Amino acid sequence: MNEDTTQHMLQQAKQWVYEAGDLIKEMMERPYEINTKKDRKDLVTEVDKATEQFLLDRIRNVYPHHQVMGEEGVGEKVESLDGTVWIIDPIDGTMNFVHQGRFFAISVGIYVDGVGEIGLIYDVMNDDLYEARRGGGAYKNGKALNRLDQTKAIDDALVGLNNVWATPNRRLKEEAIHDLVRHVKGTRSYGSAALEFAFIAEGIIDAYVTMRLAPWDVAAGMILVDEVGGKTSRVDGEPLDLLRENTVLCANQAIHDDVLRYIVPK
Amino acid sequence: MNEDTTQHMLQQAKQWVYEAGDLIKEMMERPYEINTKKDRKDLVTEVDKATEQFLLDRIRNVYPHHQVMGEEGVGEKVESLDGTVWIIDPIDGTMNFVHQGRFFAISVGIYVDGVGEIGLIYDVMNDDLYEARRGGGAYKNGKALNRLDQTKAIDDALVGLNNVWATPNRRLKEEAIHDLVRHVKGTRSYGSAALEFAFIAEGIIDAYVTMRLAPWDVAAGMILVDEVGGKTSRVDGEPLDLLRENTVLCANQAIHDDVLRYIVPK
Repeated sequence: MNEDTTQHMLQQAKQWVYEAGDLIKEMMERPYEINTKKDRKDLVTEVDKATEQFLLDRIRNVYPHHQVMGEEGVGEKVESLDGTVWIIDPIDGTMNFVHQGRFFAISVGIYVDGVGEIGLIYDVMNDDLYEARRGGGAYKNGKALNRLDQTKAIDDALVGLNNVWATPNRRLKEEAIHDLVRHVKGTRSYGSAALEFAFIAEGIIDAYVTMRLAPWDVAAGMILVDEVGGKTSRVDGEPLDLLRENTVLCANQAIHDDVLRYIVPK
Repeated sequence: MNEDTTQHMLQQAKQWVYEAGDLIKEMMERPYEINTKKDRKDLVTEVDKATEQFLLDRIRNVYPHHQVMGEEGVGEKVESLDGTVWIIDPIDGTMNFVHQGRFFAISVGIYVDGVGEIGLIYDVMNDDLYEARRGGGAYKNGKALNRLDQTKAIDDALVGLNNVWATPNRRLKEEAIHDLVRHVKGTRSYGSAALEFAFIAEGIIDAYVTMRLAPWDVAAGMILVDEVGGKTSRVDGEPLDLLRENTVLCANQAIHDDVLRYIVPK
């Protein structure tokens, strides 16, 4: 794809993401009657679907030949990464959206023949937009993000890690995770994969480990993190497959392999 | 203490906390040479101490007979809660301050003969001020916080819990913590005790468990949480002693005892 096309697509995608954020905020302010868990679940489904539909309509209107893969599946099922594919999560961090009304993000990754070209993560309530274009660097609210510190050591790292992985589970050896917890500076858990990728790109956490993410959870974040010297892989060290769920280790490249040693699948 | 005195002290404390926040931001922008862990540690110590000294000077100037207990110990050692005692943490969430430049807070609690009268927690980088006056409710940026939902069940709760407590440790039975993790809706970890208290008061998390907090980590947060129907205790269910370190369970009162069952000291 030539430079002009990518640049143009980036500008449009940014505008649509900002508009989608406004739509979410507007829907949050409506006087819903949220009294039961069921109501809350219906609300999030409604906002999620409406936001995905909003983005889908705009993409289809301007780029009728592009594919759109989304969490809510309002578009067609995408079975190949050939051509241009928009991979979108209208609300990443659904539990935070419902429970906290913050700490959630819109995530949009644009891939061309399987290669990540554009990544956008929009922290709606903080009005923070993270953006990246392959080879063009990463930005937060228009300000270039620094390359990650490649002298970082694992004992100085903050790691995004949810407690479920330190608890006996079917996916990986919790004893090895306990070792990881003991060997890093600290752990954090924010409840939004997209934001944890964005935080790695910013250098405010240094790694993020989780065992089951959908393509729309990671599509934008991987591009963002790539652009500042981070690395995303499955926990077996292999590349992710963006047509299915994956285990994920995203980290500053300096500590990626060091962290990987502590992630031992069962 | 009469109403006018408390109100006046609250207004002054708020002003000083805002000024202390400005001081921290100003010090963060200075062109320090932070190249090594040692430098970073020195920086945080410097900012921490300067901020505590700033607050101490103002308090001493207006209230020469009040005691001031602070993390950095720039005041005298406080050995009794008789009279009026300001319990302050100039930077709560030191690791976040150093590593992230955000997610830290100034915490100021004012106690009279051991009773919490005023609590202030200032999320400096987000410019969010949480405040509470005993019997006067709790506020975020001047807007009253709702009473906590007393119909909340533990399986619908988000719990602030660091991974260290799900890892074998000397303080409590990790197996019981694993049960807790399995029984709640989700866990989060933000790395600042003061902010986790503030988040409970806001209702965006529902409980916070940790095993060693100093008086200045909890003094303001306890008052804030009290005012909206939350409860803070040690993990043996007893009240905290503000002259020493404590184990802590802070939670929406509706689930406090339910969460407590999973916290089993070794």
